[in-house]
This record gives sequence, structure tokens and C-alpha cells, in this order.
Amino acid sequence: MSYSDKEISELVRFAESLADAAKAETLPRFRNGAEIEDKTGPVFDPVTDADREGERVIRKLIGEAYPGHGIIGEEFGLTEGSEPWRWILDPVDGTRAFVCGVSTWTTLIALEHLEAPIIGLIDQPFTGERWIAANGETVHRIGNVKKICRTSNVKMLSEARISTTDPRESAYFTKSEASAFERVSTQARVARFSMDAYAYGLLALGELDLVLETSLKHHDYAALIPVIENAGGVVTNWRGAPPGTDDRGEIVAAATKELHAAAVKALAG
Amino acid sequence: MSYSDKEISELVRFAESLADAAKAETLPRFRNGAEIEDKTGPVFDPVTDADREGERVIRKLIGEAYPGHGIIGEEFGLTEGSEPWRWILDPVDGTRAFVCGVSTWTTLIALEHLEAPIIGLIDQPFTGERWIAANGETVHRIGNVKKICRTSNVKMLSEARISTTDPRESAYFTKSEASAFERVSTQARVARFSMDAYAYGLLALGELDLVLETSLKHHDYAALIPVIENAGGVVTNWRGAPPGTDDRGEIVAAATKELHAAAVKALAG
Repeated sequence: MSYSDKEISELVRFAESLADAAKAETLPRFRNGAEIEDKTGPVFDPVTDADREGERVIRKLIGEAYPGHGIIGEEFGLTEGSEPWRWILDPVDGTRAFVCGVSTWTTLIALEHLEAPIIGLIDQPFTGERWIAANGETVHRIGNVKKICRTSNVKMLSEARISTTDPRESAYFTKSEASAFERVSTQARVARFSMDAYAYGLLALGELDLVLETSLKHHDYAALIPVIENAGGVVTNWRGAPPGTDDRGEIVAAATKELHAAAVKALAG
Repeated sequence: MSYSDKEISELVRFAESLADAAKAETLPRFRNGAEIEDKTGPVFDPVTDADREGERVIRKLIGEAYPGHGIIGEEFGLTEGSEPWRWILDPVDGTRAFVCGVSTWTTLIALEHLEAPIIGLIDQPFTGERWIAANGETVHRIGNVKKICRTSNVKMLSEARISTTDPRESAYFTKSEASAFERVSTQARVARFSMDAYAYGLLALGELDLVLETSLKHHDYAALIPVIENAGGVVTNWRGAPPGTDDRGEIVAAATKELHAAAVKALAG
């Protein structure tokens, strides 16, 4: 490896400062009559000043501290770097939740080295929760209360607490994906919806056991991979291959390798 | 009326002390490996010590302070009273959320006088949020930050942010109810799920515009009625009649009377 533990510790502190800076832009706009623009076509895809200003402040800080690092962000795209480090940013993951006053939106910050995820951070400013994954460990923090994350021991679908952001044929799922999710979720113990990346934080904490989604982009899943893997979970696409290797943005995140195998099998039908 | 404003103020303070006592039983058990029992038959219907101990402590305090008051609670049923006052309790509304680590479960406390709702309280211990409806006003509080609740001005379905706990044919919706919800929600701007009574708190805050549910019992909706009405919203069953007058536990809660009328019309098909 071409970096030291000390370097990673500094970069973790820096990632935390980025999350703090984003919070100063997002939280004051939450439940505060944010102007909502619709980004795209027939399906409502909102963007707010919280998204834009959150990313702007993060990009500025990275550019000042690490001008050679690359950046990929949801709102402002790609900045090529001259070094092997690259930041992957989603200032407000879950903008639909944000505009509905629901505190499951998060700020996602990932750092990759030669395209391998090294640091993952999930921040929820309203509840004050932060997940930080680095050096083989995922830590959940609320204020000064820290907890080392461990996924649950659930191995069977019939015991699983499952989640996806929207179970319907919708902005995310095609008709066949919605059917596949239904096939899995009807076997599960209980299902909760509408949580975006926050669900993966609950998986790392051992509170959910399985999360299934599609239509995720690099900035949606980059931070989640170390958060889940460092907590003992497994994350792949719906066929068991690495995230990002299909054209549907598929994610299966599971608490155990047994549950992961059962989910991949059930998704295949 | 057979009660004074002073009496209501005392009863509001008492209702808050009940919520505080329930919180001491529920919050320490949240995300803490709660033992989950399944209450009923083929559909997973969890109950935990948080539900039982939360209600037990509330009933004890009411019995000591107001021995003549009646009580209806989710876990321990009916205690007949000798006075026209009756407390309606749900110590943990959203037990499915509770067992998935999701902070949208709430404690619901309502006080009725001659079966008319006088006080409504929604408490979310993890986020520290509390809604208190009494004397024609709904107040939302986080710590010392208070806000008078006003529903949004949204009048058209196409502008509405809509919610239900589970959009599928499920523990809650029959097949035709799921179809009716889909008919309404596909016209709406955005939909979020899995929030139980917390959604009605967001409606009172002006963050959601429309909530549609069925299968609600007296202890599920009693506290919500004053919270919504005092904030300027409208709450009925799916046909526009008062909650509790059908055998399906139907609720339509809307930000404005125009949106309410549009929703009732769309539900009818």
C-alpha cells in the first residue's frame, strides 16, 4: 500500500470536517421551506439549495487542502485529480425524504485510493448520527457516545428485517425488480421503506439485516461499502458480483454471508 | 363545557409527565437487542417490553393521580372510569419501526372528555421531538425550541407529499385499499412510507400534505385528531365521515380542505 495509517487518520479527520461543513449548509435548510426544483423528466427528482451548497462547500475544502485529489459529486460531476485519491460525494442522499421533513436523508462522503474504497462516512445532521468506516472498523457516533458497529447474526430470510427505499415499480425499480423484491420481502420477517442510505447505517448497527436496491449510482453506494464490510456485512450487486459491475445500480447488503447467499438466490427467482 | 382552561393546563402538564415516564421505559430499550414477541397469527405483529412497560408505567401514574379516569391502552385494554375523562394510550406506535432501529416509532397519549378528543400528544424519544395539541393549538418542541404547527397550503394532489405506512397489500391494506392508495399516490408529487403516527406530526408541521391509512385502532388515531385539527388540517375516514365510524380504521389526514376533498374523491375511484 502506498499510504500510512497516520495518513488515513488525518484523512478521516478531514472527512469529518467536510461532513461538519456540509451540515452547516444542509441542517438550517431542513424543515425550513426549502425551494424544490425538479431535476429531470416525468418522475419527480427534487434538488434543493441544500444539495448544491452542501456539495459546493465540500468541493472548495478539498480543493484547498488536497488540490491533487479527484472528486465525483452528485450535483457538480467529475473533477479529475493528479493523485490516486478520489472523493465521492452525495451532499444530500435522500432529497425526497429531505423535502418531506423526514430525517433519513444523509450526507455521504467516500474516499477511494486507486478506485478502492478506503474511507466511508454517513452523516445524519438532524439526529446527530455519524457512521465512520476506516482501518477495518465502522464506528457509529451520536455526540460523544461511540459504538463499534457489528451487523446482526441473522442467517435466514424468514428472520430478516429487510428494507428498500421504494418497493413499487417506480423511479427506482423496474417491474421485474419490484417483483423480485416482493419475492424476497414476503419471505422476510418485516420490511421498512423510504430510508435511502440511512438503511445501510442501521444494517451496520445490527438493526436491519438486509437492504436491496437498484438505480444506485457511484455517489450513492461508494460510502456504504466500507461502512457495511467493516461491520461484518456483505455487499454486492443482485448477482453476487461487486457493486458497480452491472448497468442497473444493484445493491444487496446483508448482515451475514449466509443471508446474502439466500437473498441472491431468492432474487434470481 | 364542564372543565376550565386551568384544568386543561394541568392535564397537559400531566400528559407530558406520562410521556416522560414512558420514555424512561422505551428509549433505553431502543436499539438495544429488545426481545421481540409475535402477538398474533400469520402476519408478524411484534410486541416488546418497551410496549408493555411503557403502558404499565403510564397506567400506574394515571391510577394514582386520577383514579376516576378511564383508560384504553393497546397492550392492557380497557379500564372503566367513573368520570367523563378517558385516556387513550399507545406506548409504542410503530413497533415494527422500533425493532428495525428506525426512529419513527412514537408514544401516543390522548385525553377525551365525553369521548371528544381534548388533548393529543405525540412523543419521539430518540429525536427528542414532542407534539402537544390542546386549547386550539398544536406545539412542536425539540428541547427548548418550540414551534406552533401549521399545515401546508397545498390544495392539489399533483403538489402533494403523501405518506402511508405500507403501500402494499399487507398487514394494513386490503387489495382494493392498496389499489385506491396507488390511484392517489401516482397523482401525488412524492410518497414516503413506514412512518406510522410520526407522519401525522410531519403533516402538522407542514412537511407532508396527505396521509392515508387503514387498519388504525382507537389508540392509533385518538391523539392524532387534535394534533392535525389544531394545526389547520382535516382528518376523516376515507369517505369523509369522522374517524372511527367505519369498520376498517380508515384515516385521511390532509393539510387543507381542498386537498382533503380531492383525496376522498380519488379514493372513491
